[in-house]
Amino acid sequence: MELIKAPIKLQTTDIQTCNDYDWCMNSSKIAPTWYQKTSDEFKKIMRLFRARITRLERGLVEISAKNRPDLEQQDGFVHAGALVTLADSAGGYAALTLLPSGSRVLSVEVKLNFLRPAVGTIIRGRASVKKMGRTIAVCEIEAMMKQDQKWVTCAWGSQTIYCIRTPP
Amino acid sequence: MELIKAPIKLQTTDIQTCNDYDWCMNSSKIAPTWYQKTSDEFKKIMRLFRARITRLERGLVEISAKNRPDLEQQDGFVHAGALVTLADSAGGYAALTLLPSGSRVLSVEVKLNFLRPAVGTIIRGRASVKKMGRTIAVCEIEAMMKQDQKWVTCAWGSQTIYCIRTPP
Amino acid sequence: MELIKAPIKLQTTDIQTCNDYDWCMNSSKIAPTWYQKTSDEFKKIMRLFRARITRLERGLVEISAKNRPDLEQQDGFVHAGALVTLADSAGGYAALTLLPSGSRVLSVEVKLNFLRPAVGTIIRGRASVKKMGRTIAVCEIEAMMKQDQKWVTCAWGSQTIYCIRTPP
Amino acid sequence: MELIKAPIKLQTTDIQTCNDYDWCMNSSKIAPTWYQKTSDEFKKIMRLFRARITRLERGLVEISAKNRPDLEQQDGFVHAGALVTLADSAGGYAALTLLPSGSRVLSVEVKLNFLRPAVGTIIRGRASVKKMGRTIAVCEIEAMMKQDQKWVTCAWGSQTIYCIRTPP
Repeated sequence: MELIKAPIKLQTTDIQTCNDYDWCMNSSKIAPTWYQKTSDEFKKIMRLFRARITRLERGLVEISAKNRPDLEQQDGFVHAGALVTLADSAGGYAALTLLPSGSRVLSVEVKLNFLRPAVGTIIRGRASVKKMGRTIAVCEIEAMMKQDQKWVTCAWGSQTIYCIRTPP
Repeated sequence: MELIKAPIKLQTTDIQTCNDYDWCMNSSKIAPTWYQKTSDEFKKIMRLFRARITRLERGLVEISAKNRPDLEQQDGFVHAGALVTLADSAGGYAALTLLPSGSRVLSVEVKLNFLRPAVGTIIRGRASVKKMGRTIAVCEIEAMMKQDQKWVTCAWGSQTIYCIRTPP
Repeated sequence: MELIKAPIKLQTTDIQTCNDYDWCMNSSKIAPTWYQKTSDEFKKIMRLFRARITRLERGLVEISAKNRPDLEQQDGFVHAGALVTLADSAGGYAALTLLPSGSRVLSVEVKLNFLRPAVGTIIRGRASVKKMGRTIAVCEIEAMMKQDQKWVTCAWGSQTIYCIRTPP
Repeated sequence: MELIKAPIKLQTTDIQTCNDYDWCMNSSKIAPTWYQKTSDEFKKIMRLFRARITRLERGLVEISAKNRPDLEQQDGFVHAGALVTLADSAGGYAALTLLPSGSRVLSVEVKLNFLRPAVGTIIRGRASVKKMGRTIAVCEIEAMMKQDQKWVTCAWGSQTIYCIRTPP
């Protein structure tokens, strides 16, 4: 159960995509205002994975982390739980980009199909909002791996989110 | 996608349950033979979570880890991904207890509903095999938290597993 | 998306189980008051399947229908959709048994694993409420078939339900 | 559990889309060879829904049926089970379009989120193959309704399919 809070309204100037992971690691150039406000919370959530928001648009969020040995299981594949964590977190943030500032979200359920072995140098969770209702949002979520300069979808599925909107 | 290997045939003498987590942390009294054979692999998978197999029966496995700040998100709840990791791993091991030694399993898909905020001192993933087919196994999985001396189910769902049996 | 309405508060005298399908077909002995109030609505929903509520307890509902050729696909198995229909409807009714009279429910999502070929003389959807929250309920759902006098679970899974409670 | 059989290899000349439902109702102009071979089987499965294949491409299938009162529940919405039936069947056929002639498919699990009330004149299940493995295929499935001349997605989700390939 995940309860995160929309820091402030997402501004157009916040909408950026970072293709250079190291650049993202060392700066807050993605969604500078939004990102800085979340950074304390986000640092705590994502510290375990050393993850960063690398894309932030209205209804679409990507979160990325460098792959490292302790995320892998014995075959050298990234563990299912790591894929789910990044995809699930991306879903929560994707919903927040469409909600009023101060709103909160809870993950109701998550379902992922594992399509391919998760090998590669960077892990990325991506979520796009398929339907934003008054209280229920549904996201399409996926986990991708960077393999030889291209991105491959390794897990794909859906997530139901419960939205607690701030009163207008 | 998870690919783990049944170390040896599970012996009746291996079937034990550990209610004292510290005892499990410091010994391999759960399924001593089976556990020792998996320990190298398992140590690698579960190092991130410092998890242990705390129950091992034919078709039923529990994996537990002490809760700690870096598994929590900003509200003090354990992150959904940690719950999924332990539940998904338990599912793989539960299937392996019913397969011939040397068999391998892959997680095809996992689905969890988050029922309650995951707060407590110990996180536990539990899986029981609902159906073991020739190549497809279905597990009921859940993630529990120890709260004030009792266990509370915080996430519950299902998992489809692909079994690669060793030739007889 | 399913929107059904709790007819009246379920009375203890309404709680009965019908093991004799023909008896159920010809009477409303299951939950007589509750059943009669729903019967108009239910007749419309279930007309296609000629289904009946055959068990009604607080948090647990079974809906049954005689198998017949037009519910089967080409192998003589009951079609997945028929199994889902009965299980999904049972879930909505199971949630309603725990809600105040006049409340309504909507199916948010449904997930079923198909465990065994669905062959037999009677199809039964069963749902039990796993968690009833303020607005979100989660049910364990299954579809069973009567085969040679015993019931076999052919599909099993979960359902998320959105509850619109009547104001107290 | 669904077990359907690829009739013959899908020919390029078979790939057609039917936007005129009545035209489809009265002819077999969609995938004439493929369709005719399946028609006996298909007639049996889909008789209950009076459904037709209205689009057939490699990896993408649509099945449509006219809405009618007995598919609706008490609010005038099409019942969840009808949506699942058409989407699940479309998924099986979509997998078959990518498999050798004579192959068979089984639905392992299906998961649908209900996004909007299913009202309209025509119900359509659509499935596209997201991943075709050696034995496991994963489809993105949806159920759409025709409302005032436009198609609206009312349910969306995923399906895992087990493929029994004919030996080469």
